[in-house]
Amino acid sequence: MLLDQINGPKNLKRLTVQQLDQLAGEIRQFLIEKLSVTGGHLSSNLGVVELTLAMHYLFDSPNDKFIFDVGHQSYVHKILTGRKDDFNTLRQQNGLCGFVKRAESEHDVWEAGHSSTSLSAAMGMAMARDFKGEHNRIVAMIGDGALTGGMALEALNHIGHEKRKMIVILNDNEMSIAPNVGALHQYLGRIRSDRHYQKAKEELSQFLNKIPAVGGKFAKMSSRVKDSIKYLLVNGVLFEQFGLTYLGPVDGHDLSQLLEVLKQADSINGPVLLHVVTLKGKGYAPAEKDSYKWHGVSPKLESNQGMKVVVPPMYTEVFSEALIELAAKDERIVAITPAMPGGSGLFKFADLYPGRMIDVGIAEQHAATLSAALAMEGMKPVFAVYSTFLQRAYDQVVHDICRQNLNVIFAIDRAGFVGPDGETHQGVYDIAFLRHIPNLVLMMPKDENELRRMMKTAVDYNDGPIAVRYSRINAVGVKIDPEMEPLPIGKWETVREGDSAVIIAIGPMLQVAEEAAEMLKREGLQTRIVNARFIKPLDQEMLRGLAEEGKPIIVLEESSVLGGLGGAVLEFYSMNGYYGVPVHIIGVPDLFVEHATIKQQREQVGLTGEHVAAELKAMLPRRMIRSAGK
Amino acid sequence: MLLDQINGPKNLKRLTVQQLDQLAGEIRQFLIEKLSVTGGHLSSNLGVVELTLAMHYLFDSPNDKFIFDVGHQSYVHKILTGRKDDFNTLRQQNGLCGFVKRAESEHDVWEAGHSSTSLSAAMGMAMARDFKGEHNRIVAMIGDGALTGGMALEALNHIGHEKRKMIVILNDNEMSIAPNVGALHQYLGRIRSDRHYQKAKEELSQFLNKIPAVGGKFAKMSSRVKDSIKYLLVNGVLFEQFGLTYLGPVDGHDLSQLLEVLKQADSINGPVLLHVVTLKGKGYAPAEKDSYKWHGVSPKLESNQGMKVVVPPMYTEVFSEALIELAAKDERIVAITPAMPGGSGLFKFADLYPGRMIDVGIAEQHAATLSAALAMEGMKPVFAVYSTFLQRAYDQVVHDICRQNLNVIFAIDRAGFVGPDGETHQGVYDIAFLRHIPNLVLMMPKDENELRRMMKTAVDYNDGPIAVRYSRINAVGVKIDPEMEPLPIGKWETVREGDSAVIIAIGPMLQVAEEAAEMLKREGLQTRIVNARFIKPLDQEMLRGLAEEGKPIIVLEESSVLGGLGGAVLEFYSMNGYYGVPVHIIGVPDLFVEHATIKQQREQVGLTGEHVAAELKAMLPRRMIRSAGK
Repeated sequence: MLLDQINGPKNLKRLTVQQLDQLAGEIRQFLIEKLSVTGGHLSSNLGVVELTLAMHYLFDSPNDKFIFDVGHQSYVHKILTGRKDDFNTLRQQNGLCGFVKRAESEHDVWEAGHSSTSLSAAMGMAMARDFKGEHNRIVAMIGDGALTGGMALEALNHIGHEKRKMIVILNDNEMSIAPNVGALHQYLGRIRSDRHYQKAKEELSQFLNKIPAVGGKFAKMSSRVKDSIKYLLVNGVLFEQFGLTYLGPVDGHDLSQLLEVLKQADSINGPVLLHVVTLKGKGYAPAEKDSYKWHGVSPKLESNQGMKVVVPPMYTEVFSEALIELAAKDERIVAITPAMPGGSGLFKFADLYPGRMIDVGIAEQHAATLSAALAMEGMKPVFAVYSTFLQRAYDQVVHDICRQNLNVIFAIDRAGFVGPDGETHQGVYDIAFLRHIPNLVLMMPKDENELRRMMKTAVDYNDGPIAVRYSRINAVGVKIDPEMEPLPIGKWETVREGDSAVIIAIGPMLQVAEEAAEMLKREGLQTRIVNARFIKPLDQEMLRGLAEEGKPIIVLEESSVLGGLGGAVLEFYSMNGYYGVPVHIIGVPDLFVEHATIKQQREQVGLTGEHVAAELKAMLPRRMIRSAGK
Repeated sequence: MLLDQINGPKNLKRLTVQQLDQLAGEIRQFLIEKLSVTGGHLSSNLGVVELTLAMHYLFDSPNDKFIFDVGHQSYVHKILTGRKDDFNTLRQQNGLCGFVKRAESEHDVWEAGHSSTSLSAAMGMAMARDFKGEHNRIVAMIGDGALTGGMALEALNHIGHEKRKMIVILNDNEMSIAPNVGALHQYLGRIRSDRHYQKAKEELSQFLNKIPAVGGKFAKMSSRVKDSIKYLLVNGVLFEQFGLTYLGPVDGHDLSQLLEVLKQADSINGPVLLHVVTLKGKGYAPAEKDSYKWHGVSPKLESNQGMKVVVPPMYTEVFSEALIELAAKDERIVAITPAMPGGSGLFKFADLYPGRMIDVGIAEQHAATLSAALAMEGMKPVFAVYSTFLQRAYDQVVHDICRQNLNVIFAIDRAGFVGPDGETHQGVYDIAFLRHIPNLVLMMPKDENELRRMMKTAVDYNDGPIAVRYSRINAVGVKIDPEMEPLPIGKWETVREGDSAVIIAIGPMLQVAEEAAEMLKREGLQTRIVNARFIKPLDQEMLRGLAEEGKPIIVLEESSVLGGLGGAVLEFYSMNGYYGVPVHIIGVPDLFVEHATIKQQREQVGLTGEHVAAELKAMLPRRMIRSAGK
């Protein structure tokens, strides 16, 4: 095995191209074996094996800066930079991160998780290099999907203007996570199909050489004519017009070609866009056929020893089914997704209602404002988006949707901890960045039935924007009501009675509250549990009642304590003159929570029945605990 | 006067082109006269007089939807749609809004204030129209500067893909607010200069017709050849490659040309990009010469009756000078601006330190992540941005800057109320959307000297991102220390002693607190005032001390109450077991505050000495007020 001898990029340099090819095969085998156990991003990494090898073979990381957009395609880079023995721990607590991670290696120079940041990063690194008078290479690798993200296009505009030396590798695998959409994608498709006419182009070139020189009265046109002929002979004129030198398209699985064109790119003293065509899942037949399905693979499930376990549906599935039912009766409903039709559970909807699912590609900002305009014209747009990606559209939510008070429905998936994707993907800020925006209603369901009722509530609501956030976990397993009964806006629900203390909780935290209440019950303490299903508006009547009772209150949220639901409760009491109410909050403290299982992440921040019970007990007057203990 | 007869678009339809031209002149005169009194966006509106006339002459608003990007160039539209008599109240409380405002007119169909939203709006309206089977026109007008905003490019990508009928008017006035930057701008410049070769192009066309038909073995190339010839003969191939039909460039002050090309655009059954070249400030010599200066004009100052009034500098100027001083001693300092070099006070910096001011154009997301990368490589980037525009970069602040804990300095201008720009521009959310982000330090100065100290603090700080926010007003007029003494991170300051109650305030709210304290003093009540100059981290020691004292506390912030500094104080007390501390908050309640003067806006929400004094008194025990009254 060649791979056994590779402990860093230096070990690559003495290999022949044939050996590199062999190594590529070994790496593919390694990835398939390891990821079938741990799970992880299989297809995208199989697609960039040769490309990553070529980069490390020719260039000099970490002196040269390799920037991986998103970073989920950095596994080969990790293998080549001394981390192959850590792959058993991929995406596990304290294990190898599924994205680029500076703490792991000096070869990891830029972290991401969200897409489309790599070109800005490359530009900043190029400017800093030039300010410092240094001469290292900067190589960004970005997918064709990520390129349509607005910030990548902003960066492209800047890069083309400044003309600093860097290589942008466009990793064109013909899809982002979902099949790609957008004019840029169609443009890349035209270039790819043109590849096959290379020979005809060469002959045309000779033919054009025989045409009399364009001069004389056309002299002023000459640069235009030159450009025009270039347009005939060279691909990627769009990128050239953006001010980058275009090279490609090149086969991303042909190492000789890759090495040659990378050398060529490196010889150009300015920004180069190198168009590399790769096949997602390359070398693994099932993934080649259905790279969407194999984009991320789940770890092998442990054997259930023959027992069939009935698992409640994921909240995503519950949303999906509810939306389908509602859309059957209401033609105004359209679904909008920024390149996440599968993750957001919209494929079935799209099948049933052709044309009513709008996939805008990786473009959260546009998706939000598009939704605003659809609502302005009387549609019922449902903007389905992950909590963490909605961060990209914060301004559009404020400025376009809420300020204009439009009937946009937000279906915010992956709210709360997300597990192995880790700190870049945690959905723990949406309450904090949404709650202060005027006009917005914000809900979270306690179970699948309530999610359905919230979807109905949202569709019926005509007074402005309304959002429902739900967790990336399986729902509770309750019976589903056939009818979706809408909820009264801003009304909370007491789900458990008790007279010693109160837990206000949302979503899956209601289960944690139940666990705590059961523990306290064993000690003779009866805990009331309130389902704060409306994060905004608050149930002012219930809050006033609780204040007057004066019992200790704990707010539970799998969300940032700063600016969260607990803060909302505190602000309400403060603004309304209830100064003495004992309210404590248990939620995500002021730090970024790394990859682990959701259970481990909850344990890390104290969102467990045990911890909640202990905290509640600490708030109770001593006499109450004594008398309960009797 | 023709203008007297125009009370709606219908009155235009029967005019001749000559009369339209006359009307254009009258409108220019009207704008110059009115705006010299009220202030407002002069240059940009002078630039679109003919364009707006042509749109209303040919098309049928409000059935046809006119979408103005940003909306500051909608004055002519307002004049033509029955609002000319309201121009005396422009940008004043309860007066005409400086942007498009749906509540003003049925002709106002899409509101903005931030740039680059119009293409998403147009796309959403086109989709809604097609869903509903309607046939109205959709016309978006966007400036060349706004086109570089990422969300506009995201929308362009979607528009070109979907090919729905709409007209995008690219209002190319060769500058956004500042001179334009970026590859797209250079591209537009090439097109504009090409205009002059029109005749040569025509001759070339004939010449090419004489070349033997390209066929036979080149048959497969034919569409490419067609494209290539088109590239020779037609401008705007970049937009064509994005999937839009390009028309132009056309002179935006030639009504006949405009009417002709608008008709042509209207005849095309798909998205059209119509490139119109206008001159900012057209028809007003001073504004034509310096349209940057005349972008927005201030109302005429009232005569000072010969007295020279010494006004303290604006916080923007104080920032500017401090940055210049710091940059003289530290070559790592670079300034980044998203197209606001003037507004952010960076022109002098740019003059003194060539190459160290990076204007990325309207591209807040890229600006933020570019700053992250510069910091990653050891520079000290100062990202100068208005509070309201930082909303566009929320995700980049979380994901790229704070998560990677990079030494980026934020200079957040226009924090708090902004006056006549109104609800789209209020800087009242940055505390709420920044405070929950881990690793960030957030400061606000009480006066010019403290702003200088905070800039020094920021430059000295090497533990992560640090932000200073400051108001869009004149500073206090204190003496400036020659040396900038850094502040201890997280330490508040007691600026007035008192034993009856405590006001915690930030920035200009300290003056409001002083007013309240003076009023209370007249009633015998001594109020302590604390300058909470660090919004994050809080001064925990001082907060603990205050809690133990148990005096009533009012937090004053010209910022959203939800998620603000007051909430931070409440959360701190809650998390640390101080349950009985009486804390009240006065700030911006849960609504969008419209255009008015800053003073009026403060009055609207109760941020006045009088109101604060009354609220504080209401919190005091009755006996204290009685004994003080004696």
